[in-house]
Amino acid sequence: MAASDVKVLGMWSCPYVNRAQLALSIKSTEYEFIEENTLQKSDKLLKYNPVHKKIPVLIHGDKSVCESCIIVEYIADAFATGPRILPSDAYDRALARFWTAYIDDKWYPLVKVLRQSDDEEERKSLVQKLSEGLILLEEAFIGCSKGMAYFGGDSIGYLDIILGSCLAWLRVTEKVVGVELMDPTKAPQLAKWAERLCSDDRVKAVFPSIDRLMELHELIQAFLKSSK
Amino acid sequence: MAASDVKVLGMWSCPYVNRAQLALSIKSTEYEFIEENTLQKSDKLLKYNPVHKKIPVLIHGDKSVCESCIIVEYIADAFATGPRILPSDAYDRALARFWTAYIDDKWYPLVKVLRQSDDEEERKSLVQKLSEGLILLEEAFIGCSKGMAYFGGDSIGYLDIILGSCLAWLRVTEKVVGVELMDPTKAPQLAKWAERLCSDDRVKAVFPSIDRLMELHELIQAFLKSSK
Repeated sequence: MAASDVKVLGMWSCPYVNRAQLALSIKSTEYEFIEENTLQKSDKLLKYNPVHKKIPVLIHGDKSVCESCIIVEYIADAFATGPRILPSDAYDRALARFWTAYIDDKWYPLVKVLRQSDDEEERKSLVQKLSEGLILLEEAFIGCSKGMAYFGGDSIGYLDIILGSCLAWLRVTEKVVGVELMDPTKAPQLAKWAERLCSDDRVKAVFPSIDRLMELHELIQAFLKSSK
Repeated sequence: MAASDVKVLGMWSCPYVNRAQLALSIKSTEYEFIEENTLQKSDKLLKYNPVHKKIPVLIHGDKSVCESCIIVEYIADAFATGPRILPSDAYDRALARFWTAYIDDKWYPLVKVLRQSDDEEERKSLVQKLSEGLILLEEAFIGCSKGMAYFGGDSIGYLDIILGSCLAWLRVTEKVVGVELMDPTKAPQLAKWAERLCSDDRVKAVFPSIDRLMELHELIQAFLKSSK
């Protein structure tokens, strides 16, 4: 597939955008990355995602797909090259979608709240909730991976992309709060999985650097303080 | 498939439960319906949906699937009988999932808020937002149906089930507020689609009666008032 046929509108620092990038990388599909600016939305973004006006957007020929999970499912479906991304079994697919919804609706949003909170009590409560969620995700990993290296079995699959994309900001949050959120004493399998995933060359090429994210976090905090 | 192999934990009045029921009906799959009580969750519900403890739950043999959209996708995937529920084309599937997320995250939640609101200004604003959403959904219908009778083409498909399940409470809300929400002057194709869908025998067998829902709505309002 020629690079000009596939475009991703996104920001380097956005985990949801990283999902689209990693899925395309797994499918060995070249693409053009168009950096967006959330403070000043481009005409392209407004044209291709008129309903939500949000990144990521995948442009494939004259079609566009929005929302990160839907984009990853589309890439899994539409690009025949490379390994399969979604499990081959219907029940395993349902499980992958269930945990995706849990991560996106319940678990991962707490990471951002924790990172931006300066209330000690709130932080404690959030760390506790994230820890309870981590134990659920450890069980999910054991159930989905069936003793293999990834949620997707012996290769990086749907849930690896979904949860994996959360790891960079999770690391930043650990530094900010001074707490190990991906705690190997509570979730030993998941901690090993995270290390394994992040040492994959395709993942390394896509996921943002922790140092750059840390700088961005400090900018965001300064901005939030100044607008209070 | 024997009835004992497939069970739905739900409530007759819940649109998300109705989705599972309609999908099973389209797949000509018999099932046992187990009525739950949200005020007193059953041991079965806690066992089969320990994470969210919510209906609907589909039990298939010794496996359980939770969350209505995931259940409908699972039924579409796992039951070979009957017409296909998801579009055969990858982009059309992405579109169906996009509009599903729009309906569930943005549009349909406003219907409940409107029904339970007694603030005239808030009601006006909600009716306006629902109307803007309806126009988007009219465009979605025209795009997805490609001139045929349903979102899914010539037979009831995924988005028909998702949006269709919202129609009964939409009708109740219209009565409560005295406003035509599925307004044929604003969304003529969608208004015709709604009539067509609701005259289908499988839909009639599953969707709750407006009168019973109306009684339930009045009970809920009395309960909400008494606990203020």
